[in-house]
Amino acid sequence: MLNYSIVDKIIKNALEEDIPYGDITASSVITSGSKAKASLIAKEDGIICGLPIFERVFNLLGEIEFTAFINEGSNITKGDIIGEIQGNALNILMGERVALNLLQKMSGIATLTNKYVSKLKGLNTKLLDTRKTTPNLRILEKYAVKIGGGNNHRFSLSDGILIKDNHIGYAGSIKNAIALAKSNCSFVRKIEVETESKEEVLEALDAGADIIMLDNMTPSQAKEMVELIAGRAITECSGNITLETVRSYALSGVDFISSGELTHSVKAFDISLKNFTRI
Amino acid sequence: MLNYSIVDKIIKNALEEDIPYGDITASSVITSGSKAKASLIAKEDGIICGLPIFERVFNLLGEIEFTAFINEGSNITKGDIIGEIQGNALNILMGERVALNLLQKMSGIATLTNKYVSKLKGLNTKLLDTRKTTPNLRILEKYAVKIGGGNNHRFSLSDGILIKDNHIGYAGSIKNAIALAKSNCSFVRKIEVETESKEEVLEALDAGADIIMLDNMTPSQAKEMVELIAGRAITECSGNITLETVRSYALSGVDFISSGELTHSVKAFDISLKNFTRI
Amino acid sequence: MLNYSIVDKIIKNALEEDIPYGDITASSVITSGSKAKASLIAKEDGIICGLPIFERVFNLLGEIEFTAFINEGSNITKGDIIGEIQGNALNILMGERVALNLLQKMSGIATLTNKYVSKLKGLNTKLLDTRKTTPNLRILEKYAVKIGGGNNHRFSLSDGILIKDNHIGYAGSIKNAIALAKSNCSFVRKIEVETESKEEVLEALDAGADIIMLDNMTPSQAKEMVELIAGRAITECSGNITLETVRSYALSGVDFISSGELTHSVKAFDISLKNFTRI
Amino acid sequence: MLNYSIVDKIIKNALEEDIPYGDITASSVITSGSKAKASLIAKEDGIICGLPIFERVFNLLGEIEFTAFINEGSNITKGDIIGEIQGNALNILMGERVALNLLQKMSGIATLTNKYVSKLKGLNTKLLDTRKTTPNLRILEKYAVKIGGGNNHRFSLSDGILIKDNHIGYAGSIKNAIALAKSNCSFVRKIEVETESKEEVLEALDAGADIIMLDNMTPSQAKEMVELIAGRAITECSGNITLETVRSYALSGVDFISSGELTHSVKAFDISLKNFTRI
Amino acid sequence: MLNYSIVDKIIKNALEEDIPYGDITASSVITSGSKAKASLIAKEDGIICGLPIFERVFNLLGEIEFTAFINEGSNITKGDIIGEIQGNALNILMGERVALNLLQKMSGIATLTNKYVSKLKGLNTKLLDTRKTTPNLRILEKYAVKIGGGNNHRFSLSDGILIKDNHIGYAGSIKNAIALAKSNCSFVRKIEVETESKEEVLEALDAGADIIMLDNMTPSQAKEMVELIAGRAITECSGNITLETVRSYALSGVDFISSGELTHSVKAFDISLKNFTRI
Amino acid sequence: MLNYSIVDKIIKNALEEDIPYGDITASSVITSGSKAKASLIAKEDGIICGLPIFERVFNLLGEIEFTAFINEGSNITKGDIIGEIQGNALNILMGERVALNLLQKMSGIATLTNKYVSKLKGLNTKLLDTRKTTPNLRILEKYAVKIGGGNNHRFSLSDGILIKDNHIGYAGSIKNAIALAKSNCSFVRKIEVETESKEEVLEALDAGADIIMLDNMTPSQAKEMVELIAGRAITECSGNITLETVRSYALSGVDFISSGELTHSVKAFDISLKNFTRI
Repeated sequence: MLNYSIVDKIIKNALEEDIPYGDITASSVITSGSKAKASLIAKEDGIICGLPIFERVFNLLGEIEFTAFINEGSNITKGDIIGEIQGNALNILMGERVALNLLQKMSGIATLTNKYVSKLKGLNTKLLDTRKTTPNLRILEKYAVKIGGGNNHRFSLSDGILIKDNHIGYAGSIKNAIALAKSNCSFVRKIEVETESKEEVLEALDAGADIIMLDNMTPSQAKEMVELIAGRAITECSGNITLETVRSYALSGVDFISSGELTHSVKAFDISLKNFTRI
Repeated sequence: MLNYSIVDKIIKNALEEDIPYGDITASSVITSGSKAKASLIAKEDGIICGLPIFERVFNLLGEIEFTAFINEGSNITKGDIIGEIQGNALNILMGERVALNLLQKMSGIATLTNKYVSKLKGLNTKLLDTRKTTPNLRILEKYAVKIGGGNNHRFSLSDGILIKDNHIGYAGSIKNAIALAKSNCSFVRKIEVETESKEEVLEALDAGADIIMLDNMTPSQAKEMVELIAGRAITECSGNITLETVRSYALSGVDFISSGELTHSVKAFDISLKNFTRI
Repeated sequence: MLNYSIVDKIIKNALEEDIPYGDITASSVITSGSKAKASLIAKEDGIICGLPIFERVFNLLGEIEFTAFINEGSNITKGDIIGEIQGNALNILMGERVALNLLQKMSGIATLTNKYVSKLKGLNTKLLDTRKTTPNLRILEKYAVKIGGGNNHRFSLSDGILIKDNHIGYAGSIKNAIALAKSNCSFVRKIEVETESKEEVLEALDAGADIIMLDNMTPSQAKEMVELIAGRAITECSGNITLETVRSYALSGVDFISSGELTHSVKAFDISLKNFTRI
Repeated sequence: MLNYSIVDKIIKNALEEDIPYGDITASSVITSGSKAKASLIAKEDGIICGLPIFERVFNLLGEIEFTAFINEGSNITKGDIIGEIQGNALNILMGERVALNLLQKMSGIATLTNKYVSKLKGLNTKLLDTRKTTPNLRILEKYAVKIGGGNNHRFSLSDGILIKDNHIGYAGSIKNAIALAKSNCSFVRKIEVETESKEEVLEALDAGADIIMLDNMTPSQAKEMVELIAGRAITECSGNITLETVRSYALSGVDFISSGELTHSVKAFDISLKNFTRI
Repeated sequence: MLNYSIVDKIIKNALEEDIPYGDITASSVITSGSKAKASLIAKEDGIICGLPIFERVFNLLGEIEFTAFINEGSNITKGDIIGEIQGNALNILMGERVALNLLQKMSGIATLTNKYVSKLKGLNTKLLDTRKTTPNLRILEKYAVKIGGGNNHRFSLSDGILIKDNHIGYAGSIKNAIALAKSNCSFVRKIEVETESKEEVLEALDAGADIIMLDNMTPSQAKEMVELIAGRAITECSGNITLETVRSYALSGVDFISSGELTHSVKAFDISLKNFTRI
Repeated sequence: MLNYSIVDKIIKNALEEDIPYGDITASSVITSGSKAKASLIAKEDGIICGLPIFERVFNLLGEIEFTAFINEGSNITKGDIIGEIQGNALNILMGERVALNLLQKMSGIATLTNKYVSKLKGLNTKLLDTRKTTPNLRILEKYAVKIGGGNNHRFSLSDGILIKDNHIGYAGSIKNAIALAKSNCSFVRKIEVETESKEEVLEALDAGADIIMLDNMTPSQAKEMVELIAGRAITECSGNITLETVRSYALSGVDFISSGELTHSVKAFDISLKNFTRI
């Protein structure tokens, strides 16, 4: 699913960032050419995500094998041995931090996403990410949302129409903005419009929006709007929805709920490389 | 302080990530060549950080002026107008998300750092970041830590010696590892060693470590070690230290406390671009 | 509409390709620092496209001004003076070929597109491009299609669902393939399916396709399918449709007609830089 | 013959252009890790060119083998199975369009070149390409001209002296321009001059040109000039020479004929990847 | 003459190499935004070369003006003030080393070249460089050779035919190698052949070599060969020719003498940035 | 010790520089796909350095094996066969010059460094390099200094504090400059100060400098300063110290001596690829 041409650039840049002139500690201590192994261990509970990326870091450094004992996307528990890495000792130490930084961020996203998703159990509402991702890591973060059980909204400004307050203000009205979008954008795109009131919802419906975002509404307002729309457009709730409130929004019957927090405010998931041993 | 040759690469990559083929919404709605202005507004309290980066995004897009009303690193309050952006309307909308994603992350880091720093008020202990940064954004994140009142630890594997458990295990002992580091690394480097017990601290002191990291100790253990070291080495506490515990660690008299959380687990600071108006 | 961060990379790469070590002819003949002007002249009739790109080549080389006398997208006639370039004489000669190669290709695409579009006069059918573009020039080529009066289909494999014969074969049936796509892809995507027979059209309709591509059908088959679909899905004709046949297909009432020829088999539009004179 | 360091950059950029965020159709339909095969089939007659590039696309994506049944540069006939591709099913679909876009363009160039070359049968005149190539694909296009039986003119502004009307106008005369070139350029270069009349030809001969380009002349004018030059310089005809007229120019006895059309106005050669089957 | 698209990449890479994370000394000492000036002073005698590159380093850093008091390529004397730099104080210090490293290398090459050239005074023999240049700095080094009064041999493997011992051995004979080159390479190329004996010279002449390199011969052998060739080919002496021996070789009447030392074994020319003063 | 992510970029750029469009000589002469071998032979005495880089050039070109007969860093003697290369004949010739240019430069640096180091035999003084390296080759040059027996000073402006005359002048005094550095820079850095007189040395000591550079002093002045400092700071001599004078400086008891000459004024070490034979 990932384009490794892009993934490799991310990893190589990260390795250059972290090792502009060699690892001065490890290359002082490690005998050149010696081999070692180490275990990847979970230090909290959650969803593991990013194992192919973790492995790729070491593949790019060379002379290292990684064996995963747990599948990408699985639930893991504190203490679990996720996998084992084996090979060139210096390369293991050189790649450790970059590989962990990526794995911890991706697992953090998958784990948080999964917490949201489990709040939606039994309901038809689906969880969405946003474009509030870390610059230059979006493909990894959107992938992590999927692994965590969420769904991806548009990837970029180039591949989805989302008419927001700034566009509406400029165009003069929702009606105008939708008309402009319809006549200018590709027929493969659905038109989504951000609305903040019943009037705007009605205007958007009238103008033929495919998707109506209910922005910054309360759960009960959202419920009213979903009933008003009555299936004539796909619905999405958005705006500072939290783990605590997500189910109350979902009970409105809305089709989708999006959350920027999934990617912009994530705790790194705690994972360590331990038991580094010469072999 | 920032090398813009590197900053520009980060920004250009982020713009390509977010706009691989043009902004299909804005270019449908906005008349080509028209001008607009918008205000940058704080939506919570904290430290603003990243204004030069925010501005640079729009400079690289072209035909846009940004005027900051508040200095980089200032305390801001919810509702503050941080600055105003003015110029090519389409470019403003194309750059908005990338510019905000960077500004929100950097302000989030500066704000969190500042919370830690204020816990240390009146004490000599200083706060440090780590290498647990977002891959490919380290220069911006380490800059944000400084703006927030923190200090930078080493930048990369190439510019600081830090002998950790994996190195010690491989070398056989702290003594061996330090000896290897001393004989192989540049004289401009200080030697830092991670220790987990009194025995290790004594061994590190004996072997001539410049800096002793007290890893995963309790505040009282840290106090005992700081007294034991008695100024013969610089001291640093590390290991899951939180906002709640940071002051108790500082009271041990340790010179530095490092926290990965400053960069790996940050909440995006809430800032919006509002009042987008044609001019 | 264009992301200049990407455009600039295309131009800089092209300049390096054409001038890896300086322009050995011009730098032998031209006095360093001298200035010149030249006229950009149409040598055939058509649609001019790419003037901002032409100008950007010289802006990146520096010390050159370009003044266009004709608007981007206008009809031009053999002999028209499209614009004038003025400034550093050596840079004009160094950039000439790269700038013309891009302008001629883009104008060729816009002109060919426009010929197709004029065949559709009075009908509701719209013209589409494909992904059969020149590698690494897609943003310029899709832009040229729009300037020529055509519409863009999806930009890339990442931003549109198009289920083709290979996917259908693998999935076992159109029904299966659509079900997989619906459950896996983002809700912002429409589902398009390639069909080659009445049975497939019916299966696609049944499975809820948003867009049905009628592949390699005759105009009369297409007409039958359009009537069968009766507005329940958007329709697109595809498959070796030519300037000669495009109107007969459009008369079927199909919504869109796509043509790879618009971008993969284009004649460069003849334009010259003439009257180079020292000033 | 090709520098794969450059080829790989072209391919990787093209893959990023076509797959900025993954193949959303194929990754919905294809089971991760499954394998497939497919046949590469000619859909018209001509010269196949670009097989090593086609293969390289899939090598870079990984886990794919390509077996060619026909040699690079061979004549192929509609219906011929050119080769078979086998391996990771998702990667085959992800690379298909990029690989075909390159192969079709290169085969189109080789085929067109070959048509020109066959018009020259029995004569000593050789066919040349120009710098009117697609920006950033020149190494592939000049390679395709050679495969098609043509010859390469200079590669870039850096490796051949070609004094054109603009240089001559600036220098004041052909004599001056040649004198400047001779005194400034490397001794490894031959001096070529563009001429448009008998007077200019004589001036160029007199000034010691190594190669005289006869620009925009009729075949009979060209014949006159070739006889006038009488072997004292290499001769080249240039200027809108077509498949219909190329032999009449060659009959003038000119050494070379160059044609921009070989690369700037090429029809993509029709080739498909068919019979995609799970294995 | 230089392609700044390439020059800028060299400079930006060099700035990233020297400043991966900011200038930690200068940014500690210099007040942000303050301005300064400094003088560029010659510390030995020679030819100054690289002033436009020196200036470009600071232009890319921004907010700095450079005024040259001496023209590129002039003779300078120890103590001369070559120019003055003025502007952003921090940027001056950040760019100083990169700018000087380039300027010193280029002036070193120009100065050494000029010493060779002055040994050839009164003779027709010209001095050539080789491909023994510093990887990734060739355009700057070949430019410096020209500024120093030398001439450029081919720029790369792509733009000149030079048949050496390895090619001859593989082909079986000089005759075979030349025949292969003539039939395969572009007509714009001259054929140069390396020879080590009278037999080889005669074989090369016979086979129609345009340029004959006399490799590792003594001056008297070279004289014999030049007389033997008698103007039927261009002649070049090569092979460990030094400042001491260059004139004796030139007296043989050879057309060109090439020296790898001009670029592979150069002393940096001593230049300092002095009198850094706040303004 | 080397980060191959960076090394590979250097090599790939160098290959593009030297082969922008293929090797026109070798690809004319060599039969595609044929194999050859060749020997790497020392043509002077010294220290061999860069063998892994030499090998990497050919690995990146592909289908080539290199076998070293001598270890990296060994003393070699004129005539020694350093290793043998075997594989794709065309790739051997395409990579030869780039591989040799790097190997010769690195061996030149290691050899010169080693000459300096041998002058220090029996003394405790160590040799240091500087930042006067070739732009974009610093990691290779600093590596070569280590292989030659020298030590690395700081790698870049980002990883070492070195307060020089320009900083001192700006700050007003050594005392001020050190105070600013201490309060602004990371605690992992040592503070080095450049001094030119006894007064400055005393001021630097007083202000707590970790390292005192004695700049442009005579050996006897250096001795006086070393005795004055008496171990209270690390000492370094700098400033046009030559092979002839280095031991007299070392006899002062100084800890380190740095020399820019090690990297900025190096003679390429003479090594050839010989006996190229088809296999």
